[in-house]
Amino acid sequence: MQQRKITLDENQIPRQWLNIIPYLKNPPAPYLNPQTLEPASPEDMAVIFPEALLQQEMSTDPWIDIPDPVLDFLSIWRPTPLVRAYGLEKALNTPAKIYYKNESLSPAGSHKPNTAIAQAYYNKMAGVKRMTTETGAGQWGCALSLCCNHFDLECKVYMVKVSSQQKPHRLTMMRIWGASVTPSPSDETEAGRSILAQDPDSPGSLGIAISEAVEDAAKRDDTKYGLGSVLNHVLLHQTIIGLEAMKQLEQIEIEPDVVIGCVGGGSNFAGLAFPFCVEKSAGKDIQIIAVEPTACPTMTKGVLTYDFGDTAKMTPLMRMHTLGHDFIPPGIHAGGLRYHGVGPLISCAIEEGLVEPRSVPQTSIFNAAITFARSEGIVPAPEASHAVAAVVDEAIKAREEGKEKTILFNFCGHGHFDMTAYESYFGGKLIDYEYPEEKVKEALARLPKLA
Amino acid sequence: MQQRKITLDENQIPRQWLNIIPYLKNPPAPYLNPQTLEPASPEDMAVIFPEALLQQEMSTDPWIDIPDPVLDFLSIWRPTPLVRAYGLEKALNTPAKIYYKNESLSPAGSHKPNTAIAQAYYNKMAGVKRMTTETGAGQWGCALSLCCNHFDLECKVYMVKVSSQQKPHRLTMMRIWGASVTPSPSDETEAGRSILAQDPDSPGSLGIAISEAVEDAAKRDDTKYGLGSVLNHVLLHQTIIGLEAMKQLEQIEIEPDVVIGCVGGGSNFAGLAFPFCVEKSAGKDIQIIAVEPTACPTMTKGVLTYDFGDTAKMTPLMRMHTLGHDFIPPGIHAGGLRYHGVGPLISCAIEEGLVEPRSVPQTSIFNAAITFARSEGIVPAPEASHAVAAVVDEAIKAREEGKEKTILFNFCGHGHFDMTAYESYFGGKLIDYEYPEEKVKEALARLPKLA
Repeated sequence: MQQRKITLDENQIPRQWLNIIPYLKNPPAPYLNPQTLEPASPEDMAVIFPEALLQQEMSTDPWIDIPDPVLDFLSIWRPTPLVRAYGLEKALNTPAKIYYKNESLSPAGSHKPNTAIAQAYYNKMAGVKRMTTETGAGQWGCALSLCCNHFDLECKVYMVKVSSQQKPHRLTMMRIWGASVTPSPSDETEAGRSILAQDPDSPGSLGIAISEAVEDAAKRDDTKYGLGSVLNHVLLHQTIIGLEAMKQLEQIEIEPDVVIGCVGGGSNFAGLAFPFCVEKSAGKDIQIIAVEPTACPTMTKGVLTYDFGDTAKMTPLMRMHTLGHDFIPPGIHAGGLRYHGVGPLISCAIEEGLVEPRSVPQTSIFNAAITFARSEGIVPAPEASHAVAAVVDEAIKAREEGKEKTILFNFCGHGHFDMTAYESYFGGKLIDYEYPEEKVKEALARLPKLA
Repeated sequence: MQQRKITLDENQIPRQWLNIIPYLKNPPAPYLNPQTLEPASPEDMAVIFPEALLQQEMSTDPWIDIPDPVLDFLSIWRPTPLVRAYGLEKALNTPAKIYYKNESLSPAGSHKPNTAIAQAYYNKMAGVKRMTTETGAGQWGCALSLCCNHFDLECKVYMVKVSSQQKPHRLTMMRIWGASVTPSPSDETEAGRSILAQDPDSPGSLGIAISEAVEDAAKRDDTKYGLGSVLNHVLLHQTIIGLEAMKQLEQIEIEPDVVIGCVGGGSNFAGLAFPFCVEKSAGKDIQIIAVEPTACPTMTKGVLTYDFGDTAKMTPLMRMHTLGHDFIPPGIHAGGLRYHGVGPLISCAIEEGLVEPRSVPQTSIFNAAITFARSEGIVPAPEASHAVAAVVDEAIKAREEGKEKTILFNFCGHGHFDMTAYESYFGGKLIDYEYPEEKVKEALARLPKLA
């Protein structure tokens, strides 16, 4: 029988995270204080993050130790298997070898708990009693609920209102883990009230929900804020994925030609890809592809500039590819990955030529999802299906070119809570949408002018 | 760090299933033809099952080889880890060691694909083009959809109408794998039309859906029927769970004192427990507990007698514990496990004193589910939570008795598609219900008198 899963023992879980910053030619630009537009001080950030995470955010050490209590919790589902996608290869009739890291096996169903458990741990150690966050599709909210519960922290989740209506089951799952969930915009924060005053029927957005969660954390001494993507320390915590994959590929003596991940804020992509970016920066020949929706084309149509992380302009400004912090994704978009910006480190990697961005329309995404579900068994989340869509394209290209490439991708989550999106697909209700460049220009014209 | 998961390599997946029949003191009673009430002939059964499965149904060989194409598919998620439930032990403050087989990791989310893939394989080998089945909560319908798709068989699922309304997402998942799903009772079969004529608003039941699926299969030459539990060959295919668990326990040199599983038709229970029943029949001291809902108390209040497997009396009669084939579970019951009967081999094992049945009310089940989700991370299906509830009771008993028992149980499925039931629980809408003995007596009085 063919070996399908390349596995590691629990004692082979990596003991350190890999920090890409020292391997970049240019260090990432400093964050800016949202009031002064001057470089943000550690004190600015300490209102909402504990010191240990701020140190990681700024660290230039290449390796950072993973604390034992974090490793212990990760062992519930880690190491995740590296899976040879024999079924998908056969379905595509490709000479390419396709491998994926199955990050859907965590209790929350995605890669998100890799960082949620680290964030909950460092907050617990800092004496924090309560964490706030935002969630869109619900993957991150579930992950932080799960991990706060593990360390006996209260968890308060602001969930994008339209998502809380479309995906009430994610809300229930968060309650199972003891979290309290509020649809956003809400009347519990100034940011929420001000949005509701302008538009009582606002469907909400990630940017708005972040404003509410940050405001809540800033107001209370016992409370800090956790973000599920974008920031350096979040991407750092995810590198355990790529480090495991490297050990697994070594076992079978294979090196990938192409590495693929989907990008919202960039955490699952960075998690798999950054260790390979480090190898690429040292001269290795690897193609590294970051995939996003055409409906939210942050990397492919956005502009690399300073922007706020949230709608109410409460977070520091970060230099990143952005569509503008007041971006609201089109209602017809069911494919996930709706954040207006992207992790500053992803932007650095694109700028340095390590990463190649690409966008895919949502009907291609769901076509690829069905192909994957029927050939590999597992039903992918729409987010993961962006990666699958690019894998399908690359595998077909390999067939056309007659090349026996090795493709590695991150299967970042299952689609068990995305059945409404699949129903829209089967019902023919999904329309492809290209976000227009003019709207990006208009949005960026609204940004503050920097010196 | 403590080792949490005891794992096996893919090449350690058992190569044979274990048949309990040769280890029973008394062989199971023959099935009876539903018209003549005489022992059913192989021809009676061949209308709806392929010969290879009928041979397994009657086999007295202790070991039966698992075909390679079945093993290959099983390797998508098998071997499943044996997990030490440190979190649950701590939450219960018990000296007991608790281990569980995590069968929720299959693409369909439960143990059901273990037999679905074998059934699809033998049907494919027999030249069958199309399979029919019934499903209640949707676990089995999903499993057969997944596995028929793998072998390019059409799959037609009759889904209990009330479940298809309460759990539309399970229906979507079956469509993702290419199945066609019809709410039951439907107007597509005589059985369905006759029920609808009596009660146009019938919520349906497993017994009715089985009648429709069997009738559909019997009518068409290219079609056979697949059952997700109850029958000998189905229970046989699940023994891979217990056989893996034994290998894993050997690795850590531990023997269980208590083995626990939940019972609807009995397949996940038998899968884990039968290999241990064989050891018990050879003299080993193990307590083996089968758990069912008080709302559907087949083993604890049902009577061991011949009854039909379906409402329309189309299937052979089987000697089993039964509440009567016209049983319809109470509407307030959210806890799964709603079949009126139980696998004849489970009944034999109870009769021979190998297995101890027990019933649990649904609020205890959901209390246990929340305890498990918050201590072990994973959200259990209501079905699996029956086993968890009994584990909790046994672990507390061990604490009270000061005994360091080892408890092994089957975590047969996750609850990702059961959020509506959890919502009812949080909303205080779940009421405990004891099915009354008089109703069992009335139902059994309606059974045909045998010579």
